[in-house]
Amino acid sequence: MQAKPFGLAVKALVWDDSGRILFLRRASISKRFAGTWEPPGGKMDAGEAFDTALVREVAEETGLTIVLDRVAGATQYDMPGMKLAVLFLEARVLSGEVGLSDEHDEYRWIQLNEVLRLELTPTLHAFLTVYLQKVSH
Amino acid sequence: MQAKPFGLAVKALVWDDSGRILFLRRASISKRFAGTWEPPGGKMDAGEAFDTALVREVAEETGLTIVLDRVAGATQYDMPGMKLAVLFLEARVLSGEVGLSDEHDEYRWIQLNEVLRLELTPTLHAFLTVYLQKVSH
Repeated sequence: MQAKPFGLAVKALVWDDSGRILFLRRASISKRFAGTWEPPGGKMDAGEAFDTALVREVAEETGLTIVLDRVAGATQYDMPGMKLAVLFLEARVLSGEVGLSDEHDEYRWIQLNEVLRLELTPTLHAFLTVYLQKVSH
Repeated sequence: MQAKPFGLAVKALVWDDSGRILFLRRASISKRFAGTWEPPGGKMDAGEAFDTALVREVAEETGLTIVLDRVAGATQYDMPGMKLAVLFLEARVLSGEVGLSDEHDEYRWIQLNEVLRLELTPTLHAFLTVYLQKVSH
C-alpha cells in the first residue's frame, strides 16, 4: 500500500517574439528518451527555490537567460521506483544566444502548429496537446 | 524588467470511495480569502521534499493520513510581491477521521457536480472547471 515517492521537475516553455517555443533534442547519450524533443529544465533538488533553479538549469542547457512569466500546467511521468511531477512555466528570453550542453544535440524554435510533429514522449505529447489548445484561443 | 519571485504551493484533491472530494473552509482569521473553500495543502519551503511535506500538511490540517496518487494539474496565484505556483495532486485517505486545525472552520466531502457551487477564489474556480471536465469523462 505504500506509495512510490514523488520527485519534482520544472520545465520552461520559452517563447520567442514570433510565437515559437524552444525545444531541445536529447542526445544519444541520454539514459532515457534519447532522440526525443523536450523543453529545457530538469529535476529540482530539495533545498533549491524552483524559480532560480529553473533559470539556472535553462542557462546551463541553452546559454539563455530567461524570465519566468507564468504557470502553464503540470503532468506526471511514472518511472521505476518513483513518480515525477513535472511543472511547466512559460518564459521568455532576456539575453543570450543558444548554445547547447552535452545533454542535447540539436535545438529548434517551433511554431505552435508544428510542435506535435516533433518526436515527443507520449506523456509530453498529451500535455502539449492540451496546452496548445489552451494557448491557441 | 526583473520578474517577481515564484513560490510553490502543493494541494491535495482527496477523493473518497464515493467519488467526492474534500474541501475546507478558511476560517475568519485567514489573512486572505477568509470564508472561501479550498483543498488541504499549502506553501512548500525550499528544503522539503514536496510529497512528504504535502502529506504532513494535510495531516496537520485535517487529521487524515493520505496517499498521493497522481498529478492533477497546476495553476498560479498572482500575489503582491510574488507569484505562487500551485501544484495539485490527487490523493486518497489511508487512515484517520477529519479533525480541523485553527486555519479552517468547516469541512465537506463534495460531489463533483456540487464543487463549483462552493465559494471559491476565481483562480481555484477556473482550475477546478478544467479539472472536473477532465475527470468527468
